[in-house]
Amino acid sequence: MADASVPSFKAADLVIELSSTPKNKQDEVTFGNNFTDHMLTVDWSASEGWQAPLIKPFGNLSLHPACSSLHYGIQLFEGLKAFRGDDNQLRLFRPMLNMSRMSNTAKRACLPAFDQSEFLECIRRLVEIDQDWVPHSDSGSLYIRPTFLGTEQSLGIKKPAHALLYVILCRVGSYFNSGAESLSLWADPKYTRAWKGGTGNYKMGGNYGCSLFAQYEAEDHGCQQVLWLYGEDHQITEAGTMNIFLHWINEDGEEELATPPLDGIILPGVTRQSILELTRKWGEFKVTERYLTMSQLCSALKQLRVKGVFGSGTACLICPIGHIVYQGENLHVPCQDKKSQLASRIAKELTDIKYGRTASDWTFLV
Amino acid sequence: MADASVPSFKAADLVIELSSTPKNKQDEVTFGNNFTDHMLTVDWSASEGWQAPLIKPFGNLSLHPACSSLHYGIQLFEGLKAFRGDDNQLRLFRPMLNMSRMSNTAKRACLPAFDQSEFLECIRRLVEIDQDWVPHSDSGSLYIRPTFLGTEQSLGIKKPAHALLYVILCRVGSYFNSGAESLSLWADPKYTRAWKGGTGNYKMGGNYGCSLFAQYEAEDHGCQQVLWLYGEDHQITEAGTMNIFLHWINEDGEEELATPPLDGIILPGVTRQSILELTRKWGEFKVTERYLTMSQLCSALKQLRVKGVFGSGTACLICPIGHIVYQGENLHVPCQDKKSQLASRIAKELTDIKYGRTASDWTFLV
Repeated sequence: MADASVPSFKAADLVIELSSTPKNKQDEVTFGNNFTDHMLTVDWSASEGWQAPLIKPFGNLSLHPACSSLHYGIQLFEGLKAFRGDDNQLRLFRPMLNMSRMSNTAKRACLPAFDQSEFLECIRRLVEIDQDWVPHSDSGSLYIRPTFLGTEQSLGIKKPAHALLYVILCRVGSYFNSGAESLSLWADPKYTRAWKGGTGNYKMGGNYGCSLFAQYEAEDHGCQQVLWLYGEDHQITEAGTMNIFLHWINEDGEEELATPPLDGIILPGVTRQSILELTRKWGEFKVTERYLTMSQLCSALKQLRVKGVFGSGTACLICPIGHIVYQGENLHVPCQDKKSQLASRIAKELTDIKYGRTASDWTFLV
Repeated sequence: MADASVPSFKAADLVIELSSTPKNKQDEVTFGNNFTDHMLTVDWSASEGWQAPLIKPFGNLSLHPACSSLHYGIQLFEGLKAFRGDDNQLRLFRPMLNMSRMSNTAKRACLPAFDQSEFLECIRRLVEIDQDWVPHSDSGSLYIRPTFLGTEQSLGIKKPAHALLYVILCRVGSYFNSGAESLSLWADPKYTRAWKGGTGNYKMGGNYGCSLFAQYEAEDHGCQQVLWLYGEDHQITEAGTMNIFLHWINEDGEEELATPPLDGIILPGVTRQSILELTRKWGEFKVTERYLTMSQLCSALKQLRVKGVFGSGTACLICPIGHIVYQGENLHVPCQDKKSQLASRIAKELTDIKYGRTASDWTFLV
């Protein structure tokens, strides 16, 4: 529903220029390389407001070399997916959560507001136009990348008077080739992903570039991702670009699924929220947003109270953690066999919703 | 001198394409808008290394919409200036400090290394070509903006396999119109500029975009810039995008010029370093890199031990602070009359070096 109080572009004003040279639809080789034929762009300026949204052939952006998104990280993005169901219907998964998070991030980045439903309808039209790119497969999907840039053309650090909102699409396979694989994490307090009073709870570009260096140090230590710690007590916060969950018998002897609370340094993941809502609905064990420290995890591992640790995110869905390298120790995290473990059960329920096998109001039809 | 151990482009390979349509050279109206006729670009790829550097007419960049500098803030910049001396000779001020900081930032951002002297020589050639843009004035200068972007064309978060190094120039006037004016700062611990284990000591784009929101909240409180605090004890770190100096009688009754130490959250400013070196050479008072908290500053203000507070940076040089709004109080910071205060004396010595009135090995001839 359009919110009349926000000056916004309208989906009804969409201008569509179809590509005359559609590409061959290859299967994905590397994540995020296999772009479709079209893109959506919407220009904004402080003087003229939002322009009509435009769907046009996929192609390069022409940006002024002083563009504020290139110098000051005035940029943000979202990530969601379109799935082709067994019924051949295309579905998005809870896209209004992405629209809402994107609006929050735009406010934090001093970029202009827009009507979330109008933007979603423009995205729906784009996916509809490139619908043949959505794989006929229950492991593949079409990754949707909304992006929002400050395009101010001068070097002073200020609220941009020009901005560009755009969406690109790419065909993706399953995130990890081997479904049975579990990740190894490198946990070193010397790097911090996000901090109180910063932007860790928003999807701004600067949160990601600054993480790369630690990622390569993790690989030098034989690990695949970073386990980001925070504070003197080495709080567990996120794993790579995923939220993190601990399934354990807690200090009070209760079975618990726990994830760090949204206190400003944790990205409010759509998969995170869905896992919390799903498992709370089951009512089979305690589901908690709480602080978790490395010393609590180490004690629980020693006392065999850990049932599993997994990361969650749009790209990977659910990813079990098998090892954590911390303070010179390689901590083994138990991963139960695939069928019995909680991670697999959650992944199956969410996948069944996404591919339309289970009816749910969490899906949005294209 | 070229460092043969770093694979790098060479200034000797410069390709020069002169503009056939030079612009009118207007005086600056707003900081950072008044770009010259040419720019320098150097392409890099993991497979082919550095390409030959190119000086060409100033114009837009053509970037893939998945470009990693636009999504993940894999971007960094530098800022330095060229001055036209009374002798009509053009000078840069300690440019190798910028080259060195840029190399450090590139490493942190997982962007490739280059030979600093070769890059400086390319910049010198660019300034030489656009030399008529350097103002004939002792308050104006030519601002030089080296920029370095990851230009990977896929959405995975990884070390870019493509990168673009470029330099643009713009004519700038004095940073503040009224030379007598002092700044008011808003100090609220709810926003944090940088944190241990992050990138606050590097010139990465993400450090700046995330500061905008606080900047506008400062303006809502009637202040011009943010005084960035850190930690439970409200350490004073930076002011806006400037380093900060306190000139006072310290707790031990000594006259002292103090600035926060380079502990990972402070940008190692070229002006900061030059002020420290200059005043240490004078030997007239204690010069210290030390932690300073708001409670220390408040006590000193009450006891009339503060002689002045000022910010330093390439854009503004030296900027006296007149007021700090902190915890509901508007703290008045004494600013002595212009001629007697330390800030003016330092500014004059540095300006005399930059415009060639005082001979110094801190200048680099164009």
